[in-house]
Amino acid sequence: METKKIILTGDRPTGPLHLGHFVGSLQNRVKLQYDYDQHIMIADVQALTDNFENPDKVRKNILEVAYDYLAVGIDPKTSTIFIQSMIPEIADLTVFYLNLVTVARLERNPTVKDEIRQKGFGSNVTAGFLCYPVSQAADITVFNADLVPVGADQLPMIEQTVEIVRKFNNIYEPIFVEPQAMVPETGGRLSGIDGQAKMSKSLNNAIYLSDSAEDLKKKIMSMFTDPSHIRVEDPGTIEGNTVFAYIDVFDTDKDRVAELKAHYQRGGLGDVKVKKHLNDILQAILEPIREQRKTFSSDPAQVTQILREGTQQARQKAAQTMNKVRKAMKIDYF
Amino acid sequence: METKKIILTGDRPTGPLHLGHFVGSLQNRVKLQYDYDQHIMIADVQALTDNFENPDKVRKNILEVAYDYLAVGIDPKTSTIFIQSMIPEIADLTVFYLNLVTVARLERNPTVKDEIRQKGFGSNVTAGFLCYPVSQAADITVFNADLVPVGADQLPMIEQTVEIVRKFNNIYEPIFVEPQAMVPETGGRLSGIDGQAKMSKSLNNAIYLSDSAEDLKKKIMSMFTDPSHIRVEDPGTIEGNTVFAYIDVFDTDKDRVAELKAHYQRGGLGDVKVKKHLNDILQAILEPIREQRKTFSSDPAQVTQILREGTQQARQKAAQTMNKVRKAMKIDYF
Repeated sequence: METKKIILTGDRPTGPLHLGHFVGSLQNRVKLQYDYDQHIMIADVQALTDNFENPDKVRKNILEVAYDYLAVGIDPKTSTIFIQSMIPEIADLTVFYLNLVTVARLERNPTVKDEIRQKGFGSNVTAGFLCYPVSQAADITVFNADLVPVGADQLPMIEQTVEIVRKFNNIYEPIFVEPQAMVPETGGRLSGIDGQAKMSKSLNNAIYLSDSAEDLKKKIMSMFTDPSHIRVEDPGTIEGNTVFAYIDVFDTDKDRVAELKAHYQRGGLGDVKVKKHLNDILQAILEPIREQRKTFSSDPAQVTQILREGTQQARQKAAQTMNKVRKAMKIDYF
Repeated sequence: METKKIILTGDRPTGPLHLGHFVGSLQNRVKLQYDYDQHIMIADVQALTDNFENPDKVRKNILEVAYDYLAVGIDPKTSTIFIQSMIPEIADLTVFYLNLVTVARLERNPTVKDEIRQKGFGSNVTAGFLCYPVSQAADITVFNADLVPVGADQLPMIEQTVEIVRKFNNIYEPIFVEPQAMVPETGGRLSGIDGQAKMSKSLNNAIYLSDSAEDLKKKIMSMFTDPSHIRVEDPGTIEGNTVFAYIDVFDTDKDRVAELKAHYQRGGLGDVKVKKHLNDILQAILEPIREQRKTFSSDPAQVTQILREGTQQARQKAAQTMNKVRKAMKIDYF
């Protein structure tokens, strides 16, 4: 039974989860959870690296994220859901890993470089933010994860972890496996409803799993389509048309999709009609999730208990790893 | 009883302690220990920042340093002696503090800058080394230390801690006191026996508290004096003469010292005679320490028990602080 490979995954609790998370990771987790020993981390310590001045936001979203997990069908009986800050062993390991990475190497990390630019930190970047790949290496290895599901843009983080693991194994004792990235089959991200590449809370272009039926419809009706498609009879363009991009992802009837696209391209199919079609599909997917979410969010004590138990389990595993680390580093004095 | 001010102090376990430590800090600790709530940390985590490839050295010197402490009269009944790596709460706090300091600020720290230059790290400086002032801030504040005995060269470290404390108190809740530096009365450092400014293991110019009587004598006889004082009848120079520098520190009979200096300066007093005088004084000081050290080092189990108890006490205090930190940062979920 203990031959299941270990997965580490998770989310920053900076807001409720959206359709981008659903497509990019949540669906995949539901699929994987019975075949893998899956650890799902609510990454509050990582969220605090760029939200340290706003602890209320992070705290509030712990339960929101947990509701989303349970609502989509992540099963706490098989997946271990836990809160990062309640595993102090991760911080302990992070401090030792900081010795195995140069500042120059962290400054070269492409993912972090991009984020520093996007967030406009410039030379005010904090040590916590620059070092978060080291903290991630600790997250992954403290649970001996074999696999880390990531988007292609996060591959440098896994490379950094592998470098640290090699260095640790080489200097001390070879106690860690080199984790591997698990890039999901579904290609790429779901764009925002405004057509921007990334769906995100800060861009205000996200559809949340917790959105009401009316909000969902309103957002779909406001979606970016083909700006030159003015009259119904005009031919429309599919490329860059967000509504069709969503239909491609969510409509499983591929013949119907092909027909719809052809009709739109030759003219005579209005945006409102296409959007209504998308609305039907998304309502059907999100309605049961929304209902489940209501059930869970009406009982925060039960969900807190789930997090408590997951965190206890995770902590036990982390403590076992830290015992090995202390022995390998010869700091197991008594 | 709980109104005693709290001191945090300690040493990196990278070698047994020497006469420089004795003059610069150990004597002071023995004096202060009944009037203050003194915490003495064997800083193995900090030692690993620039000895991470040599864990054996750090491990071996934990007990060596403890023997030195006990030999000079540090009383574990009143001073709490503990091992840094066994207080994971320090790492936990360090990770949160990393968010409160910019990389640029750490790179400007004059003490760290000097050390990076001295150790020749250049652009290969590790994140662990650059960030060790943040780890020190955690060491100090996790015990709520009011006072930190430091040499003048370490003042920037206390400034860094005060900055972090102010930022934490301001963003979260004002739970920390701003620690103050406690610069010892005895001015400056004891030079090495070769006349170099710093006594250190790597320079091979140190007199250890654990040196045998013969080794002590041999080292004194090899000390740097006045290179132009060739014949006994020649006038000698006091300035820059290491033997007289030591006599100034250790000979409490100031009239005799003045007389000796005058004789040396006018000529007719040989270096060997002056060195023999210093040897008499140092043997008298170090002999009882050496004997005590032998007693303790013949019973490592007893000393380990002292460290175990001190570490337990320290950990309880650190855990209390971390409870406050978690509450202030709103990450006290359950």
